[in-house]
Amino acid sequence: MKKLYVVGIGPGEKEGMTFAAWEAIAGCDILVGYTKYVELVKPLFPDKAVFQTGMMKEVDRCQKALELAQSGKTITLVCSGDSGIYGMAGLIYELAPSFPEVEIKIVSGVTAASSGAALLGAPLTHDFAVISLSDLLTPWDKIEKRLINSAEAGLSIVLYNPASHRRADYLQRACDILMRVLPGETVCGIARNIGRDGESSQVLTLAQLRDTEADMFCTVFIGNETTKNIDGKMVTPRGYRNV
Amino acid sequence: MKKLYVVGIGPGEKEGMTFAAWEAIAGCDILVGYTKYVELVKPLFPDKAVFQTGMMKEVDRCQKALELAQSGKTITLVCSGDSGIYGMAGLIYELAPSFPEVEIKIVSGVTAASSGAALLGAPLTHDFAVISLSDLLTPWDKIEKRLINSAEAGLSIVLYNPASHRRADYLQRACDILMRVLPGETVCGIARNIGRDGESSQVLTLAQLRDTEADMFCTVFIGNETTKNIDGKMVTPRGYRNV
Repeated sequence: MKKLYVVGIGPGEKEGMTFAAWEAIAGCDILVGYTKYVELVKPLFPDKAVFQTGMMKEVDRCQKALELAQSGKTITLVCSGDSGIYGMAGLIYELAPSFPEVEIKIVSGVTAASSGAALLGAPLTHDFAVISLSDLLTPWDKIEKRLINSAEAGLSIVLYNPASHRRADYLQRACDILMRVLPGETVCGIARNIGRDGESSQVLTLAQLRDTEADMFCTVFIGNETTKNIDGKMVTPRGYRNV
Repeated sequence: MKKLYVVGIGPGEKEGMTFAAWEAIAGCDILVGYTKYVELVKPLFPDKAVFQTGMMKEVDRCQKALELAQSGKTITLVCSGDSGIYGMAGLIYELAPSFPEVEIKIVSGVTAASSGAALLGAPLTHDFAVISLSDLLTPWDKIEKRLINSAEAGLSIVLYNPASHRRADYLQRACDILMRVLPGETVCGIARNIGRDGESSQVLTLAQLRDTEADMFCTVFIGNETTKNIDGKMVTPRGYRNV
């Protein structure tokens, strides 16, 4: 059987990984992934054969994973967080029709919306949107419309890829857009290096967030109108206490 | 130390649970939760003391978990999926100020958006919204606005609680609202009993989804304008192939 597992490893440490993810890595012949993610997993499986590629090589990486599976090896392609949320699962299925003999199994993991929320308190106990600020693959005007529409509908918002070297001011731009709709006092949160060295979190207002530095290892949370700062935790009530 | 873990167990089986969730359950004195979720976990920990409550007893359950922790027992409160996404984490933090000695730790899990997506293919590889159709705690006009705004912004949408006995026609109503904005051919998916007996999934159009029966064990996915049905899988391209 020719088999390819596309696995979300969660934030990075073993404790945030599911048993299914662990088994898919333990049982494979070759571990494939972006160098940074392979490095997170490799110490747990020191004897595992590895094929790793750099960033921006997504198509090559997925093509290679399918080719290796086609050759008869059992392959596990690892992604950080959940393999289906901004992960490689979609690209694998786009390429899959050229590899009809390869059986694909997606193994989901804990995405940064969940792991970051746990660090900050409970910002996502009600409806929310997940939006990436990277305009590498999405025009900025679409991102802007998504921010505005989500805020106007009272959704909490999780921002993935809030900034990078090249996009140093993107979080600031997003906050400026959101403040057209939301008050500057809106409760927000920022989670850094979730599940890794240097893990930290901070609850602050939208106005403060605007002037906060972020990088690609941050996940940002914008509260809705009911979100509160309770003793330093970011909490969106679900409404049970009003029933 | 007085400690309360609020744990997401994922879909229900051990393989979808994280190592941290397992350890929090294994290490606690008393397992607390809604009867149905306790029943999913209990066979894995047959000797564990249990305090379970029925549905709609959320405040009582969380209050009791905090009281038990206050008395010096280590408590683990279990939720299905992720404890922070429509889970008990928020209510625990709302009640927590009355129990200042209790240390709270949220342990996130794989939510139905992730586990359902893995079953259907890769519907969430781009921006998306998560919306509950339950109007028990949210007025319907807010839900309607969230559906419209999300669809207009080109977000994929995940519907939690798409229907119940009392709300038999809610998925139909939601589809009718979405079809004001989205074409009937929009690719959609429905995942049933994820990670449990009777697990199944189906990829279909929005028009077909409108006439499909759903219940409280379903999670529903609405694609965006780029979402495709590739050999029976629901796939939202992220755009890597266009770079």
